[in-house]
Amino acid sequence: MKIKGIYTPIITPFGKNNEIDYESLETILKFLLKEQIHGIVVGGTTGEYFSLNFQERIQLFDFVKKKVGNKCQLIAGTTSINANEAMELSLIAKYLGYKCILLGSPPYSQPTQEESAQFFLNVAKKVQIPIMMYNFPEKMAFEIKEPFLKKVMSNKFFTSIKHNSPNPAMIRHFVSTYPSLQIACGNDLQFLEFCTWGSESWIGGMSNCFPQLHLDIYKSAVMKKNFMTAKVKILKIKPIIDYVISIGKYTQSVKFIMHELGFCKETCRLPYLKLTTEEKKKIKKLINFAL
Amino acid sequence: MKIKGIYTPIITPFGKNNEIDYESLETILKFLLKEQIHGIVVGGTTGEYFSLNFQERIQLFDFVKKKVGNKCQLIAGTTSINANEAMELSLIAKYLGYKCILLGSPPYSQPTQEESAQFFLNVAKKVQIPIMMYNFPEKMAFEIKEPFLKKVMSNKFFTSIKHNSPNPAMIRHFVSTYPSLQIACGNDLQFLEFCTWGSESWIGGMSNCFPQLHLDIYKSAVMKKNFMTAKVKILKIKPIIDYVISIGKYTQSVKFIMHELGFCKETCRLPYLKLTTEEKKKIKKLINFAL
Amino acid sequence: MKIKGIYTPIITPFGKNNEIDYESLETILKFLLKEQIHGIVVGGTTGEYFSLNFQERIQLFDFVKKKVGNKCQLIAGTTSINANEAMELSLIAKYLGYKCILLGSPPYSQPTQEESAQFFLNVAKKVQIPIMMYNFPEKMAFEIKEPFLKKVMSNKFFTSIKHNSPNPAMIRHFVSTYPSLQIACGNDLQFLEFCTWGSESWIGGMSNCFPQLHLDIYKSAVMKKNFMTAKVKILKIKPIIDYVISIGKYTQSVKFIMHELGFCKETCRLPYLKLTTEEKKKIKKLINFAL
Amino acid sequence: MKIKGIYTPIITPFGKNNEIDYESLETILKFLLKEQIHGIVVGGTTGEYFSLNFQERIQLFDFVKKKVGNKCQLIAGTTSINANEAMELSLIAKYLGYKCILLGSPPYSQPTQEESAQFFLNVAKKVQIPIMMYNFPEKMAFEIKEPFLKKVMSNKFFTSIKHNSPNPAMIRHFVSTYPSLQIACGNDLQFLEFCTWGSESWIGGMSNCFPQLHLDIYKSAVMKKNFMTAKVKILKIKPIIDYVISIGKYTQSVKFIMHELGFCKETCRLPYLKLTTEEKKKIKKLINFAL
Repeated sequence: MKIKGIYTPIITPFGKNNEIDYESLETILKFLLKEQIHGIVVGGTTGEYFSLNFQERIQLFDFVKKKVGNKCQLIAGTTSINANEAMELSLIAKYLGYKCILLGSPPYSQPTQEESAQFFLNVAKKVQIPIMMYNFPEKMAFEIKEPFLKKVMSNKFFTSIKHNSPNPAMIRHFVSTYPSLQIACGNDLQFLEFCTWGSESWIGGMSNCFPQLHLDIYKSAVMKKNFMTAKVKILKIKPIIDYVISIGKYTQSVKFIMHELGFCKETCRLPYLKLTTEEKKKIKKLINFAL
Repeated sequence: MKIKGIYTPIITPFGKNNEIDYESLETILKFLLKEQIHGIVVGGTTGEYFSLNFQERIQLFDFVKKKVGNKCQLIAGTTSINANEAMELSLIAKYLGYKCILLGSPPYSQPTQEESAQFFLNVAKKVQIPIMMYNFPEKMAFEIKEPFLKKVMSNKFFTSIKHNSPNPAMIRHFVSTYPSLQIACGNDLQFLEFCTWGSESWIGGMSNCFPQLHLDIYKSAVMKKNFMTAKVKILKIKPIIDYVISIGKYTQSVKFIMHELGFCKETCRLPYLKLTTEEKKKIKKLINFAL
Repeated sequence: MKIKGIYTPIITPFGKNNEIDYESLETILKFLLKEQIHGIVVGGTTGEYFSLNFQERIQLFDFVKKKVGNKCQLIAGTTSINANEAMELSLIAKYLGYKCILLGSPPYSQPTQEESAQFFLNVAKKVQIPIMMYNFPEKMAFEIKEPFLKKVMSNKFFTSIKHNSPNPAMIRHFVSTYPSLQIACGNDLQFLEFCTWGSESWIGGMSNCFPQLHLDIYKSAVMKKNFMTAKVKILKIKPIIDYVISIGKYTQSVKFIMHELGFCKETCRLPYLKLTTEEKKKIKKLINFAL
Repeated sequence: MKIKGIYTPIITPFGKNNEIDYESLETILKFLLKEQIHGIVVGGTTGEYFSLNFQERIQLFDFVKKKVGNKCQLIAGTTSINANEAMELSLIAKYLGYKCILLGSPPYSQPTQEESAQFFLNVAKKVQIPIMMYNFPEKMAFEIKEPFLKKVMSNKFFTSIKHNSPNPAMIRHFVSTYPSLQIACGNDLQFLEFCTWGSESWIGGMSNCFPQLHLDIYKSAVMKKNFMTAKVKILKIKPIIDYVISIGKYTQSVKFIMHELGFCKETCRLPYLKLTTEEKKKIKKLINFAL
């Protein structure tokens, strides 16, 4: 499965009783499809998967698949702190029609490289569809390193990796050791750096809010190889990203921006809270800078 | 609630179909009670809580409470990646008779200090029993710092903290800023250091296997203030702890030692696997050193 | 002063009594000039400045300036653990004809951002020539951050920075906040990433050994904006750089490679020692891969 | 050589032309001797050794030795960024009558464990007096680890280590692997933790200002094994230490406190600057808390 373009890790909007707000979700899906986003990741980190229970995660997969069909690529985020649950979710996603899953090592438990790799191989054996490995050490307390890769990379289903790590040496390692591995940039500001190493895809939460800008950057950097233009464009979203990271409220802010853009309520589930009035004011200004 | 002594974060033994093995669990409970352990933590990290589903966690709380009654202090580990689930589990633990819960910030989602504190306050408001705050940044991707403490410490239910962090300055901060806060050592080798700052309790996974040695160390360090003797004793478990940490298989090894001591099967749930033959051989030798 | 191209931080060859071997140095200078390197940094980290005494550092500046004249750009590395010595060296370099100095915050002493900035301003006031700021936190125990920049950047002499830090966010910060600041890549493998942010210069120790390859990469990435070709070329030196970093012997290895290429003795000054036979064998193979 | 008690890393006072102020130095020496400090370290980090040139360092060693004689133990700090200079200084210190040197791995150059160990062995072979190894990774960009120790510890001159590192596991490693190694606490607030592992000496810069308090803590913790009392006393200097660390001005503040106590000018050498009025005001208050 070719991974190429802008993939939006779609937010999960919530209603007034904190239930999943499917109506808003449909609106957002339509918006992203209209903007011609290349793919959508359902139930990822920006989608607050950790706050959904097992049933909700399945319903979410089901709903999105039914609404989107084959209008763009769909990837199901099946990471779970509970390894068995991750396995079941992966299988269910497949049955619901997903052709790719995004899977992280079970957070918190800190398995060894070999244990985690074995878990990935078990999932691959069961689902028999391409698996995008999710490397996000800061949150998962697990980093994909060479011993892990050595064990899984001979399996044909491990065709791509979403990489969001402060360790830049790993990208070079992927490229030189596993040249066929497709590297998706998982960081909101490092897409250009990834491109120089051959990456052609970008999964950034801010593409929920600014899909056009992300698509523009993709076209400049990947299609036209014009990094000068791409740089100017990426600098347009830098202030808002820097700000939401500085206050430690990335997902909460993406939600708020989507609310400001008229797509849904600003509510996140616990432990996330609403932004303060001060933060909202600041973000509203920065939205205009990015648009 | 006075937290004083050795608290065992009890393992969760599994049977041949990977179900919770309650028979073995009862044997271990009896063993720990006979050894006169001061307290037991149910469903903590060493208890692989992350691999249990919601129902299993409740059943586990229920079973242990019924078997132990008031023979020693009981603490229910209610941390969950899903904040709502953590809240419900906390409430259920209370209804089942637990008088204290061990609660960590929801792993993975990285809320702000204020958001996490608000979550803790919400739980306290609901459960109305003492809450031991669980600080384990390496796994939770969240570190309890002053802004968090400032917000929760005026609430009477936050009476203790289980601290397992490489940041030694925090212990001094607790002691000088919140002198009434009871600090439980959450690290397998740092109990003596904690004692010099007034800590009187130790929650270490290895006390599943070596409760007598842990109780001895407690008596030397806390009761008799004899650090020389305590040091000699703690050095007896240092080799085995250093080894299991060096191979990155702490919980897996505690399980294996319990198996070797005749208490249960060596099985952990995924993503953990069995130790290699080589590792088992090494650990067997080190068990003898510790006994 | 325009900083553009490949700048070699030239090694300092030593003779059999550990004195500076000026004859070999001259040979290397001629080689680099013949290869049409854009600039040479004298007495940098790869030049083992820390092992030279004050007199030697001055003689080295003098010798190189006399031999090179204006045949390529020359930058004098004047960092010193002793702040006063750094100031004097900077002044002397200017009197010897250098038009730019490379200055790091005095290593070890860990001044505040403001103190270090004030020191840089004092040097600028005295030398009145362009200063390339040297950011290398790993060795200097000091990282150039915004408070430092805020204080120095209004001074016209701070026109460039050599950046070698694992913190990728800083590059974006330089570009967006100080668009006129010239960023020289100080890392052996990150030049392409730097280029996407507008960097046009590269100061890598391996250009002592492989100047042609570095110039080729520069042409591909900066002149032709062809990152595909540049990537293929940079992957040629990746194995040797990965290896010498993995054994923790960067400078020692650059010296050895220069020895293998016939330029000088392999000797470094203490605390560096010669490579082991095994290491030499491995490196010899990797040289062929890079050539 | 038995290392036991409080050792003051004495400051180097400077006069109005920034020269070493020997008159003030003598006053401070007399004060420390009168307080019956157990030992004095000359030319350490708090003594701003990095700002002294070679001649000054020798004169300083000479002056202190002549004034102090055998009235307390004397240790010469001979760390240098230049390995050869460190060797020469060590030899000179010996000839001037010092019976112990404090030696760090040459900062900045990041030798391997083996290279650094070989350097230490070379120095030991030359000086033939006890060497206290100086482990301060944050400043030296080098951490003493097992491969280093393995190589040097069979040499009889490596009898003690000054340890200032955030890595608590190393202390336990020293104790269990090299039980005869004397561990001196090099951190201002961790002395009690060190004591539990058998440490009996403390080298903290704040003992320049508060020698009596440090001696009191030593008596409580080491002589009387009364950690409760020791803890209360160490909490008296915690606020001032926390503050000076929070502003990143440790040495500058020790100097200022000594000035406030009437011992010398507040001047440090570059890159250190004077404290701000605000900082001085704050510190004055905290002095009273500690006295």
